[in-house]
Amino acid sequence: MSRMGFWRKKKRIFLDYASTTPVLLEVKRAMGPYFSEHFGNPATLYQEGIDAKKAVEQARKKIARILGSRSEEIIFTGSGTESANLALWGVINSYQGKKAPHIVTTTIEHPAVREVAKAIKAVGGNVTLIHPNENGLVTASSIREALREETILVSVMYANNEIGTVNPIREIGKVIREYKEEKGTSLYFHTDASQAPNYLPLNVSSLGVDLMTLDASKVYGPKGVGMLYARRGTRLLPIMYGGGQEYGLRSGTENVAGIVGMAVSLEMATRDREKEAKYLSFLRDYAIEKILKQFPKASLNGSCAERLPNNINICIPGMNAEFAVYLLDALGISVAYASSCRTLAEGASSYVIEALSKKECAVSSLRITMGRGTRKNDIDVLLKALPSIVLRAR
Amino acid sequence: MSRMGFWRKKKRIFLDYASTTPVLLEVKRAMGPYFSEHFGNPATLYQEGIDAKKAVEQARKKIARILGSRSEEIIFTGSGTESANLALWGVINSYQGKKAPHIVTTTIEHPAVREVAKAIKAVGGNVTLIHPNENGLVTASSIREALREETILVSVMYANNEIGTVNPIREIGKVIREYKEEKGTSLYFHTDASQAPNYLPLNVSSLGVDLMTLDASKVYGPKGVGMLYARRGTRLLPIMYGGGQEYGLRSGTENVAGIVGMAVSLEMATRDREKEAKYLSFLRDYAIEKILKQFPKASLNGSCAERLPNNINICIPGMNAEFAVYLLDALGISVAYASSCRTLAEGASSYVIEALSKKECAVSSLRITMGRGTRKNDIDVLLKALPSIVLRAR
Repeated sequence: MSRMGFWRKKKRIFLDYASTTPVLLEVKRAMGPYFSEHFGNPATLYQEGIDAKKAVEQARKKIARILGSRSEEIIFTGSGTESANLALWGVINSYQGKKAPHIVTTTIEHPAVREVAKAIKAVGGNVTLIHPNENGLVTASSIREALREETILVSVMYANNEIGTVNPIREIGKVIREYKEEKGTSLYFHTDASQAPNYLPLNVSSLGVDLMTLDASKVYGPKGVGMLYARRGTRLLPIMYGGGQEYGLRSGTENVAGIVGMAVSLEMATRDREKEAKYLSFLRDYAIEKILKQFPKASLNGSCAERLPNNINICIPGMNAEFAVYLLDALGISVAYASSCRTLAEGASSYVIEALSKKECAVSSLRITMGRGTRKNDIDVLLKALPSIVLRAR
Repeated sequence: MSRMGFWRKKKRIFLDYASTTPVLLEVKRAMGPYFSEHFGNPATLYQEGIDAKKAVEQARKKIARILGSRSEEIIFTGSGTESANLALWGVINSYQGKKAPHIVTTTIEHPAVREVAKAIKAVGGNVTLIHPNENGLVTASSIREALREETILVSVMYANNEIGTVNPIREIGKVIREYKEEKGTSLYFHTDASQAPNYLPLNVSSLGVDLMTLDASKVYGPKGVGMLYARRGTRLLPIMYGGGQEYGLRSGTENVAGIVGMAVSLEMATRDREKEAKYLSFLRDYAIEKILKQFPKASLNGSCAERLPNNINICIPGMNAEFAVYLLDALGISVAYASSCRTLAEGASSYVIEALSKKECAVSSLRITMGRGTRKNDIDVLLKALPSIVLRAR
């Protein structure tokens, strides 16, 4: 063997944790026994089934503790997208009023909400889309103004997946409750909290939400598992029918390993929340300051104060963000333009950044999202690479 | 350490492979790297995303080869239940005719089809339910008689999950094609093939189906993954909206590990099909003969000839099947009464066996389903235990 073989494969720098996260070792370990060993179907009544059922119910309890909810308010699904679909279609399909139902949501939602809202409109529902303010935040007053007697659902994301802004969910919850009390109408509040668990509190009572979407694959859990919190008494119809699992709201054999993994990943997120938020906020502010210094015309997209600790989203005017992503990839650095979750038709332009009235930034912004694996040195490597990348990506 | 510690934990005998299967070692190994190592989101454009996308597309190709279909005719979902829902709702929701749409299905379908059919009826669709013959088989002529001009979908399961009968899908496909040509109507044929891949051929052209549901968790793959085959040109609307994954028909981040696992599990099933079918047919016939000898009043539920190699479903008049399952469980043997997939409301009675006009057998039948782990000795242990169990379970 030649000594030439001893080169080390260069480690890549992953800075797109908002798109997905690797499964933590602890999560993988917890899932392990549920593939081949404890493989029973929770619907069966002998030992293997009882073991599987127990694992699912323990996971439910763990998550309920984190959300401050009842166990039976947790419905496991196959993804965040499915959870959001269940929340929106579930409420719409169980609506029995005479007037066409009305829902209120925002122009910066993830497609899992935005596209459902479009589809609801296509079948005759009324949809009001609220713009965020120039900081990318959805204000409680803008939601309040959109409420009508026939409004049956408000859906506002907790933290935005692209620009990392954190919406005032408690305040929005409060104006919705006040409106309901004043008018005596039935009106639910859903939040897509997929980006929240690593950095933000999830207590559903203090948030004041009736429905909350979570996705394991954004919190270092497995892909293919999500959940919907649905407050007791929320009137929902399923989007899938069958064996009647998950309190009749989500049929299909439970993904036992995935559910066990999701619970552990949410526990880990809760345990490390403060520490991770502190460390990544420091790195975030350091990177933002450096980039704004490197590029005098650059600007931060979205609020600086109400922002996820791991999100850096910067507009560098004149830069072709799509090209910059390719160039950075060639250097071994993974970042995103817009978000991974746009629909194909939207191409490389960001509808979220357009909603900030920064149209020119929609194709010139990079999303850099950090995570558990990110070190200061990774950011330094990125900062060092940026000037020549930006020069080339015109 | 006392020698007393050296007792061996008694191995259980699992005889409910129709409810779910353990993940094969080869499948688990193939999935392994996609949890924490190649964890990218297939929607992203840098290396990690490209790797994930490649894995998904390779899995799609592998499965297409097994089905004799095009890759782009495979839509990955979260379960067999979701696939069946997508097939039925997908066709119904894309229907634009003036008359109420009509679908034809059977009284022995899995709830994933049966409950959707009910829900379709509840929203104004017309549903014809076909009874099987006394052998538990759905005949092509009975389907032919039910077809009408406004029929847009026929859904007949390939192999029944409870009594293991194998329906004449080719023949049914043929009469449907003939009807379509004769009348010039648009009409799709869906088969729920969840129980088929371990023992039956899956070529969609020779089966003559437009839509086919498969579930990884019944073929020694992971829970939480399924797929729908949809022939090119089939008009479907999604049941979930979002990022537009899976050709716009199933939004949500792809369960990369699960999809990779499903492909390997189907490959293994195809490779070992003949061998497994031969061995288990022998064990099945051996067990059936012995049980019918042990209990002179016992009878086999469903056709003997057109039957899955792993399915033994026997009525022992007077036996309380639910109680027998509990008693066998206490002896370390897992079998089922009815199926694991009934809805809760149905309790312990089997609607499938009722459909055979053997009403008294609906609560007195045991489903014994074998699999890759089953040995002749397991069957002998069961046979030895049965007489006293049946005596007690009255």
